[in-house]
Amino acid sequence: MAEAQILVVDVGGNNIKIKHAAHVEKRKTKSGPEMTPERMVDAVRKLAGDWRFDHVTIGYPGPVREGRLVLEPHNLGRGWTDFDFAAAFDRPVKVVNDAVMQAIGSYAGGKMLFLGLGTGLGAALVGDHVAVPLEVAHLPYRKKFTFEDCVGKRGLDRMKQKRWEKAVHDVVERLRRALVADYVVLGGGNTKHLQAMPQHSQPGDNENAFLGGVRIWQEHFRVL
Amino acid sequence: MAEAQILVVDVGGNNIKIKHAAHVEKRKTKSGPEMTPERMVDAVRKLAGDWRFDHVTIGYPGPVREGRLVLEPHNLGRGWTDFDFAAAFDRPVKVVNDAVMQAIGSYAGGKMLFLGLGTGLGAALVGDHVAVPLEVAHLPYRKKFTFEDCVGKRGLDRMKQKRWEKAVHDVVERLRRALVADYVVLGGGNTKHLQAMPQHSQPGDNENAFLGGVRIWQEHFRVL
Repeated sequence: MAEAQILVVDVGGNNIKIKHAAHVEKRKTKSGPEMTPERMVDAVRKLAGDWRFDHVTIGYPGPVREGRLVLEPHNLGRGWTDFDFAAAFDRPVKVVNDAVMQAIGSYAGGKMLFLGLGTGLGAALVGDHVAVPLEVAHLPYRKKFTFEDCVGKRGLDRMKQKRWEKAVHDVVERLRRALVADYVVLGGGNTKHLQAMPQHSQPGDNENAFLGGVRIWQEHFRVL
Repeated sequence: MAEAQILVVDVGGNNIKIKHAAHVEKRKTKSGPEMTPERMVDAVRKLAGDWRFDHVTIGYPGPVREGRLVLEPHNLGRGWTDFDFAAAFDRPVKVVNDAVMQAIGSYAGGKMLFLGLGTGLGAALVGDHVAVPLEVAHLPYRKKFTFEDCVGKRGLDRMKQKRWEKAVHDVVERLRRALVADYVVLGGGNTKHLQAMPQHSQPGDNENAFLGGVRIWQEHFRVL
């Protein structure tokens, strides 16, 4: 793809953010429980204004299977799972899980596990132009707790920082081994609360979500 | 690949088995702690006899990364990790983990998780001509036990059949969700001890290992 006329849309519960591959600026508008996919498309078209684009990537905070949303979002309006985004934008559209988009944007060769330490625990594996969405958050970790219960927001609220950080280090290494990854990139809002990076890991950058949305077209990433 | 001049080698602790893509017959020879890679290559060449082959797939019971063995095997001779199989066979060779080979041979579309219920718990994910090796066996399951402790041979020995089967059903569904797979194929020697298949799962066939070794060349499977 010679020219990068790609529009990347980051759909969140609080904001919808957009960025164009060829522009530095980001634009955003409020999201919320009234946000249907029709309204999202209208809002994005208005926000984009003079930006010309011929491809769209949408990062969505939920499971996506073969480009289709598997579940209605918790904190947005209805109608997302059956919506035809390509028809609404009148352009090719790729819809991917938001952790997958950020993982692709964070990729630096080899086999990489992306983990997003936020409210939950987003995850995706990337290697050789293939991204594999993961839902490891709800696997058991210890006692009655899942991985997400311990390293997600609930864990950070429940534990002292030091204990939470110890859990993060342990979980990151366990998941890296289980997914046979060379290294881990840690994204998400809570990575900043770590005093040290776990072994074989490096901090991500939330801006990488937009880069991921561009790369998925430009570098022909496939999502398994 | 028009003609299937592919030799598949299944390296095990007790036997080395070989099969040619164009022949029904399988041939085998004893393996064991004296089995170095040089001896394996000699034994395979002798066993193959009149079979002509121009590509080789080797299924190996341990982790493989980018076609190279990561660890020396537990129950074979030494020298495996640094060995140059392509030079020794004087042909292109793909070395893959044995669960990956069987997974590729068991693949029937969509996104499939392969789990091998044997001494341990082998695992691989396959979708769209990509296979992803997994080492989920040692993730925690409950109390002090890992998944493998419960559904592998140690679990079957420790628990009554009914409890073991309940653990298998639970673990299979948890891992299917965590890896976002459409269905699970259950291989390995202990699948026969299940009275019912877990939901979204079907039994595999150990013969599929050889089919996997052929398909990896013929259908251009990549191993992540």
